[in-house]
Amino acid sequence: MTGLPQLDLSADVLALTRALVDAPSVSGSEAALADAVEAALRGLGGLEVERVGDSVLARTNLELPTRVVLAGHLDTVPIAGNVPSELREVDGVQRLYGCGTSDMKSGDAVMLRLAGRFGVPGAEPAHDLTFVFYDNEEVEAVKNGLGRVARERRGWLYGDLAVLLEPTDGEIEAGCQGTMRVVLELPGRRAHSARGWLGENAIHRAAGILATLAAYGARRVDIDGCTYREGLNAVRIEGGVAGNVIPDLATLEVNFRYAPDRDEDAAEAHVREVFADAIAAGATLTVVDNAGGALPGLAEPAAAAFVTAVGRPARAKLGWTDVARFAAFGIPAVNYGPGDPQLAHTREEHVVVERLQPAEDALVAYLSGSSA
Amino acid sequence: MTGLPQLDLSADVLALTRALVDAPSVSGSEAALADAVEAALRGLGGLEVERVGDSVLARTNLELPTRVVLAGHLDTVPIAGNVPSELREVDGVQRLYGCGTSDMKSGDAVMLRLAGRFGVPGAEPAHDLTFVFYDNEEVEAVKNGLGRVARERRGWLYGDLAVLLEPTDGEIEAGCQGTMRVVLELPGRRAHSARGWLGENAIHRAAGILATLAAYGARRVDIDGCTYREGLNAVRIEGGVAGNVIPDLATLEVNFRYAPDRDEDAAEAHVREVFADAIAAGATLTVVDNAGGALPGLAEPAAAAFVTAVGRPARAKLGWTDVARFAAFGIPAVNYGPGDPQLAHTREEHVVVERLQPAEDALVAYLSGSSA
Repeated sequence: MTGLPQLDLSADVLALTRALVDAPSVSGSEAALADAVEAALRGLGGLEVERVGDSVLARTNLELPTRVVLAGHLDTVPIAGNVPSELREVDGVQRLYGCGTSDMKSGDAVMLRLAGRFGVPGAEPAHDLTFVFYDNEEVEAVKNGLGRVARERRGWLYGDLAVLLEPTDGEIEAGCQGTMRVVLELPGRRAHSARGWLGENAIHRAAGILATLAAYGARRVDIDGCTYREGLNAVRIEGGVAGNVIPDLATLEVNFRYAPDRDEDAAEAHVREVFADAIAAGATLTVVDNAGGALPGLAEPAAAAFVTAVGRPARAKLGWTDVARFAAFGIPAVNYGPGDPQLAHTREEHVVVERLQPAEDALVAYLSGSSA
Repeated sequence: MTGLPQLDLSADVLALTRALVDAPSVSGSEAALADAVEAALRGLGGLEVERVGDSVLARTNLELPTRVVLAGHLDTVPIAGNVPSELREVDGVQRLYGCGTSDMKSGDAVMLRLAGRFGVPGAEPAHDLTFVFYDNEEVEAVKNGLGRVARERRGWLYGDLAVLLEPTDGEIEAGCQGTMRVVLELPGRRAHSARGWLGENAIHRAAGILATLAAYGARRVDIDGCTYREGLNAVRIEGGVAGNVIPDLATLEVNFRYAPDRDEDAAEAHVREVFADAIAAGATLTVVDNAGGALPGLAEPAAAAFVTAVGRPARAKLGWTDVARFAAFGIPAVNYGPGDPQLAHTREEHVVVERLQPAEDALVAYLSGSSA
């Protein structure tokens, strides 16, 4: 830990957010910050701490009947000239600007505050607690630290509820949709375009598929009071050999965003059915990516109590998020954090200061059982 | 002329073809061969000779009532290990193998034989003759030597009939079709694919255009006994930003091959009409290339006499060829040569030896008036 500030978990959540933002940790270079987090957690005396790569795991072992997992990634997207952090009042509102303020060092700061309160000897949380600070969330899924923990230390992720402190503007976002990408290859027969009838135009064969996509009636699905809205979209099309050649191949990539009442196999079966005519006519369909969604699981008592503690109705998460990694083990998981998702990854990234303390307070109330 | 054989115009057409093939002249490096051709033509004594870049022009000035232009390009595609030429009997047929044998040094050899016969003092052709040996036909149109002659020495191209000795397998190919390429840009609105309804998918908008293309009823047009067959084809399609983004642009390139009864403006008007719905819906159409075709002009007496001399019915040329450069000046033009168009640009390029002499003989008959 060279040049990094000690993390003082007794400082308030704003000061802690600033300390985290001012310690740059772009994906792949989280080691120093992970060191600081690990040292701070070990110093508390009430947590079992383990390091996995640049992820830091910590948990209470109070043998309570329920366990809540809190998770947040330590990395940020590349810095855009917006570190160190800067406190500014804009439109009469205090805002903390800087890379990671919203996504998601303010969430990490809330987690550290909770660790400081409940991870000390003699603390009496209502649930056992697990903290997961992980690396490489903003890059290729294969590098994702939470995925690595799931593979190498699966036991650390078990719990009755997982809360990811991703930016949600203080709202509860429950579950998440699945996402699948398929590639359709449409064959044709090459010919000189001066004698086009000797060939078969692969690009023209995309007409039916695109018409199917344009007319696709996407479902809206209500689960546990959350509305999931599906979508089936071409995201890439390619074809062509030269300006005077009838093309013998067109390639179409389609993204299916699906509600969590379908699992990965059901989603694939649906897409194959949608394109059944094209496949029967010779198109090949290849699944290149398929990540199942996560049911909101709000009927589970631990999740319902969380919703009560926060005092806001849950809404559906439409994008795919790391909550699905918990859902894969049957653990209800929600996103809930003080950051603003609209500002994530922008040069103007900031967090509204007055959102910080309420997030901490709601979680303290929930974890201390005072709201149950 | 270093290292190049003298061209002996009294040698037979096979020997002359070999001499030309054995003097490599890939596009851009025709200078040495052009030097040899120029020297041979100047040596005949009955021709006015002019050099334009690496094109060689030569003509009789006998003040005859009609003039026939004979044209051939000197360049070849890159050599594919098939130089020097090689005489082989395959399937009981004598064939001369080598780069340019078919496309089109056998045609150039016929031209040189005709120059040797009619370009000497005292010769009495039935028509004044113009010979055009030009460079850079196998590369970008802007480099084409015949195009340069048309721009800089237009007078040299005037005549009552032009014969291009391109490979046609000994058939007469009359006129040529036009070719136009247009690019259609379909706009959309970008959005995250998890919230696709906030965007407008530009790729989906191609459905209607592709359906139009797939259903397009191409014309067949008979002119002077030749059947031209049109075609409208997508030759390229592109679109897409990323696997999780609703694309805001799709680009479609369409090639229209059109019969020579449409001129360039009429062809563009037709294509704009075909895509009128898409254009009204916001697509933009840009013409990126438009080269008009050439009417066969076989009703002209000089052309009709040529068809009689060859003794074969003329057929339509569907690809665009340099005959259109003559047609632009109102000069009937045909392709007629001993090479095989199927073999052009292949490693196995060859010319059937027994096609050479008949091609020379038919032209001698025509040009001496003995067949009229």
